[in-house]
Formats: sequence, C-alpha cells, structure tokens
Amino acid sequence: MPTATLEELVRAQDVGALRGWLGETGTLDIAEELARLPPAEKAVPFRLLDRNRALAVFEALDPTHQQQVLEGLRDEMVRGLVEDMDPDDRARLLDELPAKVARRLLNGISPAERAMTAVLLGYPEESAGRIMSPEFVNLRASMTAADALAKVRRLAPQAETIYTLPVTDDQRHLVGILSLRDLVVSPPSARVADIMTTDVLSAHVTDDQEDAARRIAEGDVLALPVLDGEDRLVGVITVDDAVEVLEEEASEDQIRLGASEPLDRPYLDMGVWRLARKRAVWLLILVVAATLTVNVLQAFEATLDQVVTLALFIPLLIGAGGNSGSQAATTVIRAMAVGEVRFADLPLIIWREARVGLLLGLMLAGAGFVPVTLLFDLDIALIVALTLVTICAWATFAGSMLPLLARRVGIDPAVISAPLITTLVDASGLVIYLLIARAVLGI
Amino acid sequence: MPTATLEELVRAQDVGALRGWLGETGTLDIAEELARLPPAEKAVPFRLLDRNRALAVFEALDPTHQQQVLEGLRDEMVRGLVEDMDPDDRARLLDELPAKVARRLLNGISPAERAMTAVLLGYPEESAGRIMSPEFVNLRASMTAADALAKVRRLAPQAETIYTLPVTDDQRHLVGILSLRDLVVSPPSARVADIMTTDVLSAHVTDDQEDAARRIAEGDVLALPVLDGEDRLVGVITVDDAVEVLEEEASEDQIRLGASEPLDRPYLDMGVWRLARKRAVWLLILVVAATLTVNVLQAFEATLDQVVTLALFIPLLIGAGGNSGSQAATTVIRAMAVGEVRFADLPLIIWREARVGLLLGLMLAGAGFVPVTLLFDLDIALIVALTLVTICAWATFAGSMLPLLARRVGIDPAVISAPLITTLVDASGLVIYLLIARAVLGI
Repeated sequence: MPTATLEELVRAQDVGALRGWLGETGTLDIAEELARLPPAEKAVPFRLLDRNRALAVFEALDPTHQQQVLEGLRDEMVRGLVEDMDPDDRARLLDELPAKVARRLLNGISPAERAMTAVLLGYPEESAGRIMSPEFVNLRASMTAADALAKVRRLAPQAETIYTLPVTDDQRHLVGILSLRDLVVSPPSARVADIMTTDVLSAHVTDDQEDAARRIAEGDVLALPVLDGEDRLVGVITVDDAVEVLEEEASEDQIRLGASEPLDRPYLDMGVWRLARKRAVWLLILVVAATLTVNVLQAFEATLDQVVTLALFIPLLIGAGGNSGSQAATTVIRAMAVGEVRFADLPLIIWREARVGLLLGLMLAGAGFVPVTLLFDLDIALIVALTLVTICAWATFAGSMLPLLARRVGIDPAVISAPLITTLVDASGLVIYLLIARAVLGI
Repeated sequence: MPTATLEELVRAQDVGALRGWLGETGTLDIAEELARLPPAEKAVPFRLLDRNRALAVFEALDPTHQQQVLEGLRDEMVRGLVEDMDPDDRARLLDELPAKVARRLLNGISPAERAMTAVLLGYPEESAGRIMSPEFVNLRASMTAADALAKVRRLAPQAETIYTLPVTDDQRHLVGILSLRDLVVSPPSARVADIMTTDVLSAHVTDDQEDAARRIAEGDVLALPVLDGEDRLVGVITVDDAVEVLEEEASEDQIRLGASEPLDRPYLDMGVWRLARKRAVWLLILVVAATLTVNVLQAFEATLDQVVTLALFIPLLIGAGGNSGSQAATTVIRAMAVGEVRFADLPLIIWREARVGLLLGLMLAGAGFVPVTLLFDLDIALIVALTLVTICAWATFAGSMLPLLARRVGIDPAVISAPLITTLVDASGLVIYLLIARAVLGI
C-alpha cells in the first residue's frame, strides 16, 4: 500500500507517482479516493487512465461526481466516456446534468446510442423503464442451442447481459427465459423451446423501480425482463442496477425515519444550506405540532401550579411514550418494506402491539415504583406508574398503526419517523398524565 | 388470478383446487403465501410440488419458515430437499435449527455435501466464509478457451455459479478471473491467461459478510472469490447472497435506529413476549437515562415554582432538540454505512453540522418569536428563541458526532438511535433552557 493519499499526489502534481498509484490500486478504491478529491481536481488522475479502466472507474462514481469529472475533461474524452456507458447508466447521469450540458453530451454520441437513451428518459422517474437496458439478446423458441449460442457470441459486445436470454415470439411477447448456463450445457441440437424456463418473473416499464428490484432480489435472478403496455419485451433490468436501487431506497427510508428529506447527492457534496433545507421543513412542521403541548399544559396550568413536582416528570414520561412508539413504528415499517406485513394484517398487528406496549409499560412501572415512592411519595409513584403503563400501551398502538394507515392513503410509511411519533405522542401523553394526576390527587 | 387464498384452499382440504393454484402461481408468490400459513399447515401444499419447484420455493423461504416446513414432511422428502440445497443456504438453515435436528439432517445427506456444509459452519458467524459456496469451477491460466469451456460444461451441474470463473495457480492462489461472457466470445484456441482479468476483487473467509457484500455491490460483480488465511481460493460469494446480506443489514440498522434489538425471525413469527424482550432493554436504559431530567428539573424547582409558565415550553423545546439531533445522526449514520464518511472526517462534519444546527435554530426562533410575544410576553419569547438556537446547534453537533465516536470505539453506529439522541439531549437541553430563563428573568 502506498503511503501518500491520492489527494497529496494530485497536489504535488507528481505524474510519475500518480501513474504508479493508479497502476497498483483497484478500480473501486480509485473511485472511492476520487470521490473525496475537490471537484476541480477530480479530472486530473482520470486523464492518466486508459480507456477501459477510465470507464470502469467512471461507472463506479455517483452521478454527482461523474459530472465533476466531465467538467474537467477535454471534449473528445468526454464523448468517449459517455458513448461507452450503458444506456441506463447514461440516462441516470443525463438526468442529473443541467439541460444544456445534457443536450450537448447527447449530441456528441452516435445516433443509435442517443436513441436508446432518449427512450429511457421518456419513462417516468423511479420507474422500471428508467433503469432497464434496451441492449439484450433475445432468442426464438424454434432456434437450436447452436444457433442461439452463435447469436449470443455475435451480439455479446453490445449487450448489457448475456446470462439471461429472453425468448420471444413474433409479436415480441415473452414466452420464456434461457440462462446462458442452461444453454452452454445443452447439446448443440437441443431446441430452445425444450431447454428454456417458462416460469418467468417480469416487470412492466411503469412499475416502481423498487418493486422491480425487490423482485430480482427475492427471485434470486440475475436479470428481469421488462415489458411495455402491450406486453412486448423492451428491456432487461440487471441485478447490479437492482442492488443500487435497493441501497438507495434503504438510504432514503433511513433518512426519512430520522425526519429529514433524503439527500440528492453524497453527504460530503451537500453544502450547509442544502443540508439545512432538507431538514427545515420537517423540523418546522414538528415544532408547529408541538405547540399543542403548550396548549395542553396551559389547560392544566392550575394543577401544575398547585403541585409543581408534577412538572419534574414531564420529560421522562413523554420520552418513554415517544421511545416505545418509535420502536413499534420502525419495526412495522421495515416489515412492510420487505413485504412481510400488509394492510390486511392491521387488526392482528394492533392486537399484538397493544399487548407488547402493555407489557413494556408494566415493566417500566414496576421498575420505577419503589424508587419514586422513596424519593417522592406514594401518590406521585402511583401517578407515574399508571401513566407509564397507559402511555406505553397507547404509543406502541399508535406507532404500529400509523405506518399501515399512511401506506393505505398513499404516503410513504417511512415518513412516520421517530420524531413524528414522539411529537404526536407528546401532547396526548401529557393529557393522560395530568388527568391521572388529578384523579389520584383528587384536585 | 384465483380468488381463494392459499389458506382457504388448505383449510378446505381441496387437493384438486390446491394443485390448480400451485400450477398457475409463480414460485415467489407461492413462497410468500406459504410464509403466511400457520406453522402446522405449511407442509401441506409443499407435498404437492414436484422436486424442482419444491426446492425453488423452499430456497425462497426464510430459515424460520423452512424449519416449519421440514417439521411437517416425511423423512425422505426432507433428505431430498436438504441434499439439493446449496451448501451456503444449507449452513444458514442448520444454524437456525435445534442442534439435535441439525445433526439428524446432516447425517441424512451424502458425505460430500455434508463435508462442505461442515466446513462453512466452521467459520465465525457473520463472516464471508459462512455465506460463500465451495462449489465453484476454477481454471488454469495455461488452458485454452476450448479446454475451459469443456470443464465448465462438465462441472456446471454441481457449481453454484459458472458465470465467474476464478483462475488459480499450482498453490491454489488466485491469479485472475474469467467471466463466462469473455470465455464464450473468445476463439477456442485463445489461452485463459490472455483473456482473463487480473484486476480482481476478493475477500478473506474471516472478513465481515457485510463488507464482502458491499464489495460485490460497489464493484458491480456477480461473484466474489474468497481466500483463506494462506490466500488460497476456497469459495465464491454470489450476488444473490450479497443482496440478502445487504437487505438484512439494512433491516438491522433501521430497527436499531428505532431503539430496538433486531428481530431474529420474520415479524409475524415473533410472539408478543419475544417482541417485548427485543425492546425492553433499550427502553429501560433510556428511562434510567431520562431520570437525569428529573434531577435537572428538581435543581431548578424554585425557578419553575416562581414562573410556572416556563414548564409549558418544556416538551416543545426538548422536542426540537431531539428532532434536530435525530436528523443529524441518521444522516451521518447512513453516510457511514455506505462508505461516504470516515472517522478522519470528524472535524469537517462537526464544522458543517454545527453551522446547519445554528441555521435551523435561527429559523425556528425567527418563526416563533412574534407568536410567543403576542400570546405570552417579550421575556418568554426571548427565552424560547435563545433556547431554540442554542439547543438546535448543540443537538445537531452531538447527533452528528456520536455515531463517528461510536464506530471509533467499536460500537455499531446504528445504536445511536433517534430515541437515544433525544434522551441525551433532553437533560442538557433543560439545563440550557433554565439557565437562559434565569439570566433573562434575573432570578
């Protein structure tokens, strides 16, 4: 391992050392280090790579970083890179570029490549059509294995994958799939119709890309055929693109669960203003919702004034509610994301989670009763214990139900974040607390 | 689409309708419906599937559900299924079974299959060795393409994958990779040495399985060679296993971020007691940590008694702190999980996030100042505004720093959950609030 970092080598403008480093570093590691260079310097090491490696490194970069590299390269190198990309990756990059730059790039490449990319860009964002490749090798059921292998050999250089070979009829309808594996082990005279699989997973161009990606993951397949509105084969989605989609969706869900908008570029490339903007809307909504707690406490101000000790337990009690609600919500949201739970399970889930919440509340109440009695008095201990049981059961119930209801009305369940649950439970928890306090204290 | 559900058909014991349903339903959908049957009934539809489909459906099930199916099958069918599984999937299933059942199953299969599974079970849990397959086809650099293709054809039936062909020397050291794609397009007389790639990603048996899986995802490869302590090739990890690992890790992270322990089986198979146990520990820790808020408020009891209005804003202010802290933490945790951010970036991240927090605090303070002045008075408005600015800056700073520190001391950063941040910020936020109140009110 060389000791100098890429950044130091670029700063030192030591072309020899830079060539050495690039020679002994894998493409993935080059991409990772390149991502960390200042935007203006990203193109420097790039110019020293040969065409094949340059493409491999370029494809491993995020669209944001690809754009920064392109800005520093001469036009002919840009054209070469963009021409060599797979049409689906190119569509993704062009999406991120300013319209003027995208148009200039598209004009620089061959008409055939341009046409394919333009088709992909015509499908809705986040759809299966956007991430499919139109470059596949399709077979006919009447071919022999020898014919099929000859066609595969001929078309391999242009195809995104040759491991999954869709078999179509005269109307381009999908009738089966032949894997290259089954093809190479079959005798040359075998007919495609006899060696193909007809139990085939597929997607439609307008399907959500996450659904298509999850079908690839669950079906353990390397590629998924994509059909248009008339069920004609128009492309395939490969497993590498599916992995990328699933990772992106996991990132988005996770960041939404933290009550922030998903980032549209890598974290370190987000400026301070951009980061703040991603969080500002939710933070403001939550604070506005939290003004309800001020109203609730105002309504009970006389009670608080009479027994100021009650104020001491406010953060602890609403915290316990928020936490048990967040636990339930995140668990249910993930179970929904991986398809284990559906809306029809709502009654079952409510029945389970209400009991879980009750159990957790009883546990917390049991743990707290004696200490609170000793440090304060029996009345306060009773109030705190009763509140913990009620608040945990209520919060767990609400936390498990809200994600399912959100999905039902067409909202991403991941929007039901821990902070949102906490805020919603805060006001209702205070009402529960202070009503119990009044009843126990007889005021 | 048949209108009756699998559950209804099984209840009705209508074998004809059941066969019909199984015939027109894809393996993935069968697995999904099977997962939802009561444990005792899972084997019923299974016995009606032919051997190949039964294996496909079985492999699409979770180990928990596989176990339930096995319990309902006759011994010879169990043996057949387990014998046909890939060694890595089998190791995963055996791991979940009670030791006695696992031993009986292992004894039922052929010595060769048994030996392979035993080797995998010898590697540490969550290691790359556990998820690799020892059934690969390796080539020699001196072979011709024709020799290589002949070997691939001969060994394909036993191999987990033939799309990635590792090339090894006499000591079984990895010298390159040949893809089946490059092999089939090469002239028969070409030498493997000349058509293989030497820029090869690999993993070691003891590497963390998530690292290995992420290498597959980032490198856009279909399989990753795995080496032992002496750098000899011992297996390959395929992309389908990598996808499964990444999905599992995303689930674990997400559920940890909700302050719960990850589930060890599908959600609907977790009993109420088990679910409660997964959450109880964290909930208790957080409540104990929250007792600090009681102490803080006790220390300021005189201030609260004097101006009871201050109590009204407690939930809102600590809520705003907890929310901005959670936003920062989840964003940084995800950036770490996907490798965008390292510990060395700590100063940079602190500098960025402190400014983001300050901006957000100023925004909230600005939005709240006039309404609070009108509804309460200028002093209260000033206190609330100053607290919002300070608390948001502080919480964002703490939320962004803690995940990096956790990783540094060897703790999974996903443990820094939104509820944990909220609880930590609560006590310090109260101190900030009441000190500001005292200063402004001069008490």
